[in-house]
Amino acid sequence: MAFRATILTLYPEMFPGPLGVSLAGKALERGDWALETLQIRDFGRGRHRAVDDTPAGGGAGMVMRADVVADAIDAASTAGDTRPRLMMSPRGRPLTQAFVRDLAAGEGAVILCGRFEGVDERVIEARGLTEVSVGDYVLSGGEMAALVMLDAVVRLLPGVMGNQLSGTHESFEGGLLEHPHYTRPAEWEGRTIPEVLTSGDHGAVERWRTAEARRITRERRPDLVGAPRHEP
Amino acid sequence: MAFRATILTLYPEMFPGPLGVSLAGKALERGDWALETLQIRDFGRGRHRAVDDTPAGGGAGMVMRADVVADAIDAASTAGDTRPRLMMSPRGRPLTQAFVRDLAAGEGAVILCGRFEGVDERVIEARGLTEVSVGDYVLSGGEMAALVMLDAVVRLLPGVMGNQLSGTHESFEGGLLEHPHYTRPAEWEGRTIPEVLTSGDHGAVERWRTAEARRITRERRPDLVGAPRHEP
Repeated sequence: MAFRATILTLYPEMFPGPLGVSLAGKALERGDWALETLQIRDFGRGRHRAVDDTPAGGGAGMVMRADVVADAIDAASTAGDTRPRLMMSPRGRPLTQAFVRDLAAGEGAVILCGRFEGVDERVIEARGLTEVSVGDYVLSGGEMAALVMLDAVVRLLPGVMGNQLSGTHESFEGGLLEHPHYTRPAEWEGRTIPEVLTSGDHGAVERWRTAEARRITRERRPDLVGAPRHEP
Repeated sequence: MAFRATILTLYPEMFPGPLGVSLAGKALERGDWALETLQIRDFGRGRHRAVDDTPAGGGAGMVMRADVVADAIDAASTAGDTRPRLMMSPRGRPLTQAFVRDLAAGEGAVILCGRFEGVDERVIEARGLTEVSVGDYVLSGGEMAALVMLDAVVRLLPGVMGNQLSGTHESFEGGLLEHPHYTRPAEWEGRTIPEVLTSGDHGAVERWRTAEARRITRERRPDLVGAPRHEP
């Protein structure tokens, strides 16, 4: 069974969007993965198909209704569907490369894209949604976050990147950021390529790359090397 | 001058993509912000317009050439253009809501979207590119990261969200994740709304929301409350 993503959204026209281009798009056409969208408004209440209401306790914005969202989830994820149910949210578990690999090894995901101020807490609890955050910033809705997460996952699926995926020297492999890259021309604007890289000594190249990856990680992201890594 | 983003990419067809939809899209049509793309391949070398070459020192993948990227940057950002030059990269400075606010207060950005294994280090240095990371995971290219960053920025621009942007209770305001939300129906699947929210006591509601935001942040993201916050 190919990886299958089901997106619950008020903006199905955002999908596949950028995922329909380049390698992810070709893989989608080939059926290496599948993407379907469910319009949450189809489960809205009343003549105007309302999906939201004012927040209990007052305040700005609107909150997505528990009953509407539950109906959409129940339609997307029927009995026997063991795919994880995720909700994109800045309050969520931070997306890491380890989490991405776990998702890519699975059957897919049901992904709720929140909008407005948020989603009624009761449906998050009742339907066992795992909140996932792509970063410590606020987006206009969950759609963009879902696109990013799927891009990270899809490139790891079998057949998608072919031999273009090197894997071994990517950022976060081994908990390190990637070493610097160089290519021709050998000299550019008076700047040369570090000598070791053109020495032909493969062992020395490897040692230099590892040392550089460590240096860059230490300088830029001491949080990745200092503390023990929390990969939930 | 409205916020103006110039994207250097091999996939201009990915833009505006999801940013052409919903509030960001309407704001783009109104001219509240501007988006232009530059095809890096137009600056490629030789008959095949090559933009990349094999990595110095060997290894998998291809590296984007310094000379090609420099020509694209120089075309996008002429003398007097004071917009920051950013490059989307997992090795970069993590995007935070504070960083997003800084960008939204500025004139725009020139954004290089890397592809393949990476970009020749010399052009990153020579053109003073600030590497920015949207999260600790690897994407198929910088395009999706640029879309996410712009979504976060555009929603903060004057006029884009109107009064739909509450601002005060969003995640990361005051360094906290957001409190839970509830709305009608008052009872759903046997679950009720916390009593304080329907009490009409606005002070009590405020205290409950602050306490819940603190609790959720402590439980889910001790890194945000325990250590002093590093907002570079």
